[in-house]
Amino acid sequence: MAAFREEKDESFHSQHAPLGAFASFTIGLVDSPGGFGHALRGPARQNVYVGFRAGRKSAWRLLPFFAATKSGEAAFTGEPSSTRPPKAKTLRPRDYRRVLDWASDTWRADRERFGFSLLSPFGETADPVRMGKAEARRAFSPHLNGWIEYDNRRGKSPVQLVFGLGDPDSVFHPLTDSGLALPGFALGTQFAYATAPSKLVEMRQGFDVFAPKYRDFRGLCVLGGESGLIFTVPAGTRRRFPLVLAFFAQGIVTTGHPARYAYTRNFRNLEEVVAHGLDQRKHYETVAEVRDRELAATSLSDDQKFLIAQATHSYLGSTQLLCDDKAPIWVVNEGEYRMMNTFDLTVDHLFFELRWFPWAVQNTLDRFAAHYSYVDQIRLPDGRAVPGGLSFTHDMGVHQAFAPTGHSSYECDHLRGCFSHMTMEQLLNWVLCAACYAIHTHDVAWLRKHRSTLHACAESMRRRDDPDPGKRDGILKHDSLRGGRDGAEITTYDSLDVSLGQARNNLYLAVKTLGAWIVMEKALKLLGLPAEANAAALSADLVAQTLVAKFDHASGTFPAVFEADNQSRIIPAVEGLAYPLFLGLEAVVDRHGRFASLLDLVGRHLKAILRPGICIDAISGAWKMSSTSNNTWWSKIALAQFVVRRLFPESLSAAAKAADRVHARWQRSAACGAFALCDQIRSDTGVPCGSRYYPRGVTSILWMES
Amino acid sequence: MAAFREEKDESFHSQHAPLGAFASFTIGLVDSPGGFGHALRGPARQNVYVGFRAGRKSAWRLLPFFAATKSGEAAFTGEPSSTRPPKAKTLRPRDYRRVLDWASDTWRADRERFGFSLLSPFGETADPVRMGKAEARRAFSPHLNGWIEYDNRRGKSPVQLVFGLGDPDSVFHPLTDSGLALPGFALGTQFAYATAPSKLVEMRQGFDVFAPKYRDFRGLCVLGGESGLIFTVPAGTRRRFPLVLAFFAQGIVTTGHPARYAYTRNFRNLEEVVAHGLDQRKHYETVAEVRDRELAATSLSDDQKFLIAQATHSYLGSTQLLCDDKAPIWVVNEGEYRMMNTFDLTVDHLFFELRWFPWAVQNTLDRFAAHYSYVDQIRLPDGRAVPGGLSFTHDMGVHQAFAPTGHSSYECDHLRGCFSHMTMEQLLNWVLCAACYAIHTHDVAWLRKHRSTLHACAESMRRRDDPDPGKRDGILKHDSLRGGRDGAEITTYDSLDVSLGQARNNLYLAVKTLGAWIVMEKALKLLGLPAEANAAALSADLVAQTLVAKFDHASGTFPAVFEADNQSRIIPAVEGLAYPLFLGLEAVVDRHGRFASLLDLVGRHLKAILRPGICIDAISGAWKMSSTSNNTWWSKIALAQFVVRRLFPESLSAAAKAADRVHARWQRSAACGAFALCDQIRSDTGVPCGSRYYPRGVTSILWMES
Repeated sequence: MAAFREEKDESFHSQHAPLGAFASFTIGLVDSPGGFGHALRGPARQNVYVGFRAGRKSAWRLLPFFAATKSGEAAFTGEPSSTRPPKAKTLRPRDYRRVLDWASDTWRADRERFGFSLLSPFGETADPVRMGKAEARRAFSPHLNGWIEYDNRRGKSPVQLVFGLGDPDSVFHPLTDSGLALPGFALGTQFAYATAPSKLVEMRQGFDVFAPKYRDFRGLCVLGGESGLIFTVPAGTRRRFPLVLAFFAQGIVTTGHPARYAYTRNFRNLEEVVAHGLDQRKHYETVAEVRDRELAATSLSDDQKFLIAQATHSYLGSTQLLCDDKAPIWVVNEGEYRMMNTFDLTVDHLFFELRWFPWAVQNTLDRFAAHYSYVDQIRLPDGRAVPGGLSFTHDMGVHQAFAPTGHSSYECDHLRGCFSHMTMEQLLNWVLCAACYAIHTHDVAWLRKHRSTLHACAESMRRRDDPDPGKRDGILKHDSLRGGRDGAEITTYDSLDVSLGQARNNLYLAVKTLGAWIVMEKALKLLGLPAEANAAALSADLVAQTLVAKFDHASGTFPAVFEADNQSRIIPAVEGLAYPLFLGLEAVVDRHGRFASLLDLVGRHLKAILRPGICIDAISGAWKMSSTSNNTWWSKIALAQFVVRRLFPESLSAAAKAADRVHARWQRSAACGAFALCDQIRSDTGVPCGSRYYPRGVTSILWMES
Repeated sequence: MAAFREEKDESFHSQHAPLGAFASFTIGLVDSPGGFGHALRGPARQNVYVGFRAGRKSAWRLLPFFAATKSGEAAFTGEPSSTRPPKAKTLRPRDYRRVLDWASDTWRADRERFGFSLLSPFGETADPVRMGKAEARRAFSPHLNGWIEYDNRRGKSPVQLVFGLGDPDSVFHPLTDSGLALPGFALGTQFAYATAPSKLVEMRQGFDVFAPKYRDFRGLCVLGGESGLIFTVPAGTRRRFPLVLAFFAQGIVTTGHPARYAYTRNFRNLEEVVAHGLDQRKHYETVAEVRDRELAATSLSDDQKFLIAQATHSYLGSTQLLCDDKAPIWVVNEGEYRMMNTFDLTVDHLFFELRWFPWAVQNTLDRFAAHYSYVDQIRLPDGRAVPGGLSFTHDMGVHQAFAPTGHSSYECDHLRGCFSHMTMEQLLNWVLCAACYAIHTHDVAWLRKHRSTLHACAESMRRRDDPDPGKRDGILKHDSLRGGRDGAEITTYDSLDVSLGQARNNLYLAVKTLGAWIVMEKALKLLGLPAEANAAALSADLVAQTLVAKFDHASGTFPAVFEADNQSRIIPAVEGLAYPLFLGLEAVVDRHGRFASLLDLVGRHLKAILRPGICIDAISGAWKMSSTSNNTWWSKIALAQFVVRRLFPESLSAAAKAADRVHARWQRSAACGAFALCDQIRSDTGVPCGSRYYPRGVTSILWMES
């Protein structure tokens, strides 16, 4: 019963989002608005009215997707304006059952007779460069399908259903007014919702969609900020009504490099999207069903399935397929930060994108190589500046503003913590993404085009270890001078303490370097370059050998930083193994193979740290990335869990295994749930401290790897 | 001293707006954000930072255009987010002097050494149909000019100035990143601000523009939600730096009838607007200066001048020049309601538009005639429906959604109050606008094209009096059936009580009918139609004669409604006289002429009601439109004041004359001031109850008629 009650406290937004539209219809958080949003850093602020009532006189019962608002009427009538909730009973979590699945989100209530669902289908998607118009329309239509239903087969009187919206700052108009003969409403040229024509559907608009006082020649009051579709389910029948929610952003949407949404090539306007979405709904419903079945068929726990589903929803909401005059441009926006193609997220989205649309990875890598790369100098211990090598920027811009060539929106100078440069980190990320892309897709032709880049990356990796080959041990020891002489490189873990934040002599980055050399070796072999592949293998061996030597046998762990007697212990020690493991490369898959000694020590490290009070939070039971920081990032935990479960199952204590429950509860609770998927979370409280509305949780798709 | 202190309580937003962009940069309300907004119903929510500091170490002193906000930094660093005011001293109203002029708004502080000004120039503007591209660029550039300055001639150390913005939901980018080599920032493709290149200007962007912690390769942190320009005024110098604020909305912005901004034909994007605005600033500064001098040269009181200036600013913010493939489309949006070309506002904006851009009136009238007219039936006392005649809809749509042909967004059916139909009101409005336009501009050719419309209007006016010519007395007595048998026509005074709200047998509408016949007579004469002109004259005489008979000699006033022993007394009894008076038509200009009896009685009416407790509010001293309602509309008061002062000066008691002070104080105070110009105001408290952010106050331009 305790578990049941806990479930009933759930309150979380999910981003319902088509692929590539950087748009979401966000609902789910109890007693909270949401609705249509484009390019936002969090949920929109529209009231969403979804519910039912038995007969025309009884009270509406609504899902809790709204808050009390001021009526717009008073401004016209000159009366004092008062805040009011709609005249309806709001269903509490105990009154409904919500199932968030991989590509659907369904609410059921009234003994399962009432149902409402929004679909976010996604699947294998061909490269838009090679798509015909019809295929592109299907693949990148900026709409969502959904449905609302009631089983009134045993009812004696008709039941009414509602799907409606209230926007405090805007006014919807009937779709018929913009030339589309469907029951539905649109907000300007941007957002719309509709259903199929039916005698059982009534359009409503007014200051209060549940008590319309004013009706024009067609029964609406189009000044009203609330609109809705009222469906009637006759007694003795069961009806499901389709819903379509559409988004449209016309024209140039980016600066720096002017681009528009790719879908604007296939749809002239919002109304065409609505019509297409309704017309083609069977297709999208089928895709969503296939995805849902796929997740259901895994042996994952319900908590794990939920986490994957919630993460995928937020990822889709951050995706953006643009195009310029020449070609498509793939962007994943970084959740609340809205940085564009943050490279240290690209490397995490990699696994999801390689499964469904590997061209997105290629597109991003090409752009990094062409526009967002640079060559730096590094600092020797004696202070001299010497050539470093090739690397890549942290991101490509922020909030739809492409950054100048060779620069990110994030990296600032003269810093040793957050906002500093991530030269080595992003260098590894290009190598890892490129090798994983080419090996996974067998796209050797693409790899060949980037052969010189790959060589330059290898050289750059080695020089950052030490410009003098004789002094190399495989580990980053020289900071880039790009951030100035008083700067120091950081890692993606920018908001953590030194255990994960400092790049130099960092365990996380060292193992990631190892992973990069392993996949590089494989990539170079694919290119038919045995000498270079062998050199990469030697570099891998060198890192591994050095790492073995860094093991602290007294504690049975690796220190997080090989400097200053660091005492932190970190889970992302295993992160770098994820890539060769994902690719099934024998070097790491075999615990008793080439890297047996290192893998054995990593296993011991994990066993030692996956304990309450070290890297299992003593209060909450959650995994925490570092023993010395209570800021933990769930997407990275999910990535580590993939490695740990597959390679080091012996290290999983009962406490470690039980943690999915905690992680899922966090995301289901209002603190995280207010911003859909949250990544940076306080490990003791489950309260988010950053990375809200965030795409990176799709690392969890690795759990589905068989 | 009392007056002085009162002045220092002033706190009001003003809309700084270019002509036709439906956009404002709104600032002025004390301790309140504002900034760039497009198509909003009220002020935007950006912090605006404007101020100065002596030297680089002392505290900034800022005008109070911002509120404490949460820093965006915490989301990145994982630290708890706290609300903070900027590290600056906020100037209080007593610390600065603000002068809102007709086309400028200037703040001075620090013993007049510091100055900041935003210009909203406007002037005689040719018909866009006949404009060349260069002229159109000048006339409709969606930008504002401004400046910031400091007189440091006696200073011993440099003074710094700031103009900056903070947006809680968005991130600006440096203009250089979107290809414009000017110091400045832009928000997407929509809003930008810039200054001229100078060694004395520094660009700033970060989480706190006053204490930037992070700097990239060019000294900015482009993730930060705050940006600004820092100007240095060297010791011993006086410097004024130009500012340009630009707006841009690309693509189709309306539905129903898809249209784009006319300026998009002359500017490709935001950056072109910024460059133009800076380049051509002398032109715009000159226009603004001419306007300011023009207002200053009048013999109006300071309060009257302020009211005209504030009203004009809000009017400009509601104007929108669109175009479709064929022609320009003029729209004035109705303030917070955003109804498009509300006809009962068009007739009020008439005087302003005829002065500066009469083609706007013509454009609107053409569109009403072509798309937003209808022919109705009217209800006889015995319930029979008989043909009524031609009339026009209340408006053309709402919130950029054009309504279906023949319908407004406002009018609903089966009502007897607010939201009912305004058939007679809008019929008179077309006649008044058309006649005033043609007579004022001598555009007889246009009038000739609408000859049949004019005839139909005349016929419709007469039939609404009575379909039987023998029963006519000149006054509306038959409600349109367009709102149903249970509906009744209302007037523009929709939120007032029956004294002004009911159309049938209404004094206000009767005098307006008289005014319409008088100007129609003149128009028909211009058309060379003496018989029709004579018939119009007879209709005018008939209304006047009936009105004379309605006078209540006991009270020395006209009842507001000629029904049910109505006891209300109203100021808008004189409104209908404004049009012939504006045109200088002898019929009304001469108190001893053709309508001497009626004018004499109107004078007595005014004298009787312009007294405290009747139509002067006993508490506040303001003019109130109706003795039985405390909802008063300042724009309509201004219109009535024009008539009263010109035609009935003997009725102006000392209390009536003193009221401008009250009306100005309302608009200068925070209750109204929070929404720039407010129109519907509680006459006892000065608190607005509707019509915020409102364009209609430009009726006050009539005060400038010599």
